[in-house]
Amino acid sequence: MTRIVVLAGGVGGARFLRGVREEARRRFPDGSGGTTAAIAAIVNTGDDAWLAGLRITPDLDSIMYTLAGVNDEQRGWGRLGESERVSAELREYGVGWPWFTLGDLDLGTHIARTSWLRDGLRLSAAVERLTRRWDLGGVRLLPATDDEVETHVRVRDGDVDRELHFQEWWTRYRAALPARAFVQRGVEAAQPAPGVLDAIASADAILLAPSNPVVSIGTVLGIPGLRQAVTGASAPIVGVSPIIGGAVVRGMADACLAAIGVETSAAAVAEHYGRRGRGGLLDGWLVDDRDAESMAAVAASEIAVSSLPLLMRDADTSAAIAAAALDLAGVHR
Amino acid sequence: MTRIVVLAGGVGGARFLRGVREEARRRFPDGSGGTTAAIAAIVNTGDDAWLAGLRITPDLDSIMYTLAGVNDEQRGWGRLGESERVSAELREYGVGWPWFTLGDLDLGTHIARTSWLRDGLRLSAAVERLTRRWDLGGVRLLPATDDEVETHVRVRDGDVDRELHFQEWWTRYRAALPARAFVQRGVEAAQPAPGVLDAIASADAILLAPSNPVVSIGTVLGIPGLRQAVTGASAPIVGVSPIIGGAVVRGMADACLAAIGVETSAAAVAEHYGRRGRGGLLDGWLVDDRDAESMAAVAASEIAVSSLPLLMRDADTSAAIAAAALDLAGVHR
Repeated sequence: MTRIVVLAGGVGGARFLRGVREEARRRFPDGSGGTTAAIAAIVNTGDDAWLAGLRITPDLDSIMYTLAGVNDEQRGWGRLGESERVSAELREYGVGWPWFTLGDLDLGTHIARTSWLRDGLRLSAAVERLTRRWDLGGVRLLPATDDEVETHVRVRDGDVDRELHFQEWWTRYRAALPARAFVQRGVEAAQPAPGVLDAIASADAILLAPSNPVVSIGTVLGIPGLRQAVTGASAPIVGVSPIIGGAVVRGMADACLAAIGVETSAAAVAEHYGRRGRGGLLDGWLVDDRDAESMAAVAASEIAVSSLPLLMRDADTSAAIAAAALDLAGVHR
Repeated sequence: MTRIVVLAGGVGGARFLRGVREEARRRFPDGSGGTTAAIAAIVNTGDDAWLAGLRITPDLDSIMYTLAGVNDEQRGWGRLGESERVSAELREYGVGWPWFTLGDLDLGTHIARTSWLRDGLRLSAAVERLTRRWDLGGVRLLPATDDEVETHVRVRDGDVDRELHFQEWWTRYRAALPARAFVQRGVEAAQPAPGVLDAIASADAILLAPSNPVVSIGTVLGIPGLRQAVTGASAPIVGVSPIIGGAVVRGMADACLAAIGVETSAAAVAEHYGRRGRGGLLDGWLVDDRDAESMAAVAASEIAVSSLPLLMRDADTSAAIAAAALDLAGVHR
């Protein structure tokens, strides 16, 4: 059985995983429309937050809904056919963040998860229970950690420095307050969630989804022991550039890159991840055709590099990217 | 200022309180459509429960929604224009009680309350915050206690005795499992909520709403110190019979009376409450015209008694009942 591990954030991670699943069905078919390959997603939990007494885990949910086929493709987040009746009530009571919408269908997930967490379940066990409801086509979702390690952002706001939750910076301020640093609150005491290290150790390929390199992939790798497990694994590590044509596709990942002094280019992100064995991660790197000029610089770092269209328009284009990543990782049918 | 205290359960309590408010506006008008009287409702919390990680308080909510004019009059409980999108999700995840519906609008209240309780607020403070949103026409809602004292029911189920939460007995089993006893779990350590004893001590009239004498009024009075405060207060105590024409109006209060060996009659309930000063509570008792034959027995116990139509069809009929109760209590304009 071929084992594929994907490090992933929210929307980009979800679309990429859909492609990996599709490509796995083609490359490793099980004869009944599925795949014999085992796909594990190790998902960023830095965006998680307590909101209105509920634990929300946006990246895990984006991936779960997308793989289950119940996501709102148009809007880019949340459930299809969503409504906001409960949120309107909460606003009247002055509860929650007025700039953060909790959809009714989505709230079902939040309430279920929170009730299990309050009962003492770990996040990974709650995720396992939530995903039982859906057919994810065999993809297993693992939170990077069960511990509450929330990403905070140090910003300069007028004359003062302050720190705010990533969600507030991202959703309320649209990443417009210049970030000086990202902090993983409480990361020192955190551990990878059960199953994470095993999945990494037994992987045949480790793929970095085209997610935010700083606050998605970077946050996953920031969990103590996780980066070491990835770099020490026997599997090749192949990343997919989140930069297309010198710009971020959606979201405001460039603001995150700028905060840590990384240029918004496919080559700069590859350099940021670094060459495996030289303090970095990558064995391979996929860039968009429009960034082909960056290939020489990446190759000069002895990172194997390919180019192809990286815009994930649909399952087919996403599967093509996954196929190229698996090719670079040497995982063939 | 005239101070009226009402001990109340859910639906019957809510309708009666609407009548008390209406009558107070007529009897003690403030010149702008309101009343100069202070009305405090001391509300049963024995039906409260943790459900799907949320704290639900059905009686407090019934009263709040009814006084705010947003209750579903037809259905008899919950919010007008309610929907159940979140509940359907919870069912899919296997969370909550499938036989207990949480409406979407109602969930807004539950989530707000629970988030405040999780933040460390006491129930009475959470109620105060919730009611800030609504215009209750000056009625103040006080939970009988801030402590979690949930009513459980000992039943004979086939060959075995077991104990279940009141909500399960009432809503799931429609009170059809013969009850052997009602238990207020943890009542020994409970205290009246802040404001309760003061309201009772300074009252000009203490009214017992036509709520369930066992699991609503009885539960309120079961909080240590509460019954003593009521019987020791200077105000007259007048009760309204929940029995009309020898039957309960709605709900299954007769099952509760049967469990404690009280007949379903206006006279038997008066006897159950008892004459103040003789181990009981009542100075006065209102019975329905159809139960006029019970008046002699009540009067023989030296409880002042009047009869009038007790079916609370609308604000006017409810106000007439409140007027009769205030008359019996000697509280005149």
